Amino acid sequence: MNEIFRSDLAEVQVRLVDLSEAVTEIMEKASMAFLNSDVRKADEAIALAEINEEKALAIDELAIRILGRQSPVARDLRVLVSALRISASLERMGALAGHIATIARFRHPESAVPESLRKTFSEMGALDCALSRKLTQLLRNPDVDLAKTIQGEDARVDELHRSVFDVVLSSTWQENPMYTVDVTLASRYHERFADHVVDISAKVAYLTTGDWSEIE
Amino acid sequence: MNEIFRSDLAEVQVRLVDLSEAVTEIMEKASMAFLNSDVRKADEAIALAEINEEKALAIDELAIRILGRQSPVARDLRVLVSALRISASLERMGALAGHIATIARFRHPESAVPESLRKTFSEMGALDCALSRKLTQLLRNPDVDLAKTIQGEDARVDELHRSVFDVVLSSTWQENPMYTVDVTLASRYHERFADHVVDISAKVAYLTTGDWSEIE
Repeated sequence: MNEIFRSDLAEVQVRLVDLSEAVTEIMEKASMAFLNSDVRKADEAIALAEINEEKALAIDELAIRILGRQSPVARDLRVLVSALRISASLERMGALAGHIATIARFRHPESAVPESLRKTFSEMGALDCALSRKLTQLLRNPDVDLAKTIQGEDARVDELHRSVFDVVLSSTWQENPMYTVDVTLASRYHERFADHVVDISAKVAYLTTGDWSEIE
Repeated sequence: MNEIFRSDLAEVQVRLVDLSEAVTEIMEKASMAFLNSDVRKADEAIALAEINEEKALAIDELAIRILGRQSPVARDLRVLVSALRISASLERMGALAGHIATIARFRHPESAVPESLRKTFSEMGALDCALSRKLTQLLRNPDVDLAKTIQGEDARVDELHRSVFDVVLSSTWQENPMYTVDVTLASRYHERFADHVVDISAKVAYLTTGDWSEIE
């Protein structure tokens, strides 16, 4: 690998780590906004999600420029193509967190989450933030064990996602339809956020081991 | 452009057109399954969505092999990177249509859509199918006017998506929460499906005109 290409790749990595940190911050603010009807945090999350989109586009441009200039092959080529996909996933994660903040914004000054689901969403938000932080760590120091740990950890998010519907569809659920809509979408956004973390981790594991089976 | 590269690109295009046709078929079946509680159509849609995912992965592999073998630059490079993104969007569209079919599958023998929203979902499903067919046409014969037409046509889907919530949140909505959950998610899936059509059309417009402003 030549020096210029090595430094180009390092630049892509730094930017992906930066994007992943920004995504964590958006999810932290969105989760606080959602749980506490905090309209200021909601606005911050929404504004950051927009910046996030621009950052992701800039990484794509950088990766395409490197592809054109260096014409990498084999593993180097796959690293760059993966970078394009990882930035697309990080962009979506920011957008999903932004959607959660938007729900909080819409419902303000009312709460978007009824008391019966507060604990569930609190755990789901905390898990998404924790997964996002681990993802940053993984992007900074690719490590197949950490990648596999992350891939196992979204099971709890899926479980919580299903449990939201158990509550909503139970006979004790007497909330108005607005709550049903809000918690249905918010739960879906939390679940998709974790899905993207798993997808990215699988790509990093693949790049580390070269084993395609990791990403299927 | 050399002959091999030209034939490689033609192969990518043929496969994207094929994938787009498959996506239309999945959405047609999913929409019928959803509107008529047709469990057979639902199963067909779900099975096709799985095949669709494999096809999309195969296109990605092909595009990466071409990148590695031909090391394209400038426009040719952007065409291939766009192909990767288009196949990712088509894969998601198939998955979203599959989710709609899964809702119908779950609710069978009951209907997933209450009478008060049947007309809305019927129109939304028909619009998604029509958009998907136009997308196939666009991928077969890239044309900036058709791309722009498509980009304008998802406005009606967005409008219908919002109208679902107007109905659900109105005082006349007396359906049980199961319906509220189902129509919330189904409406979201229809809307995201159309979003992907618009995203792909914007990429095709960009590739045709070379004007970056089309895709921002």
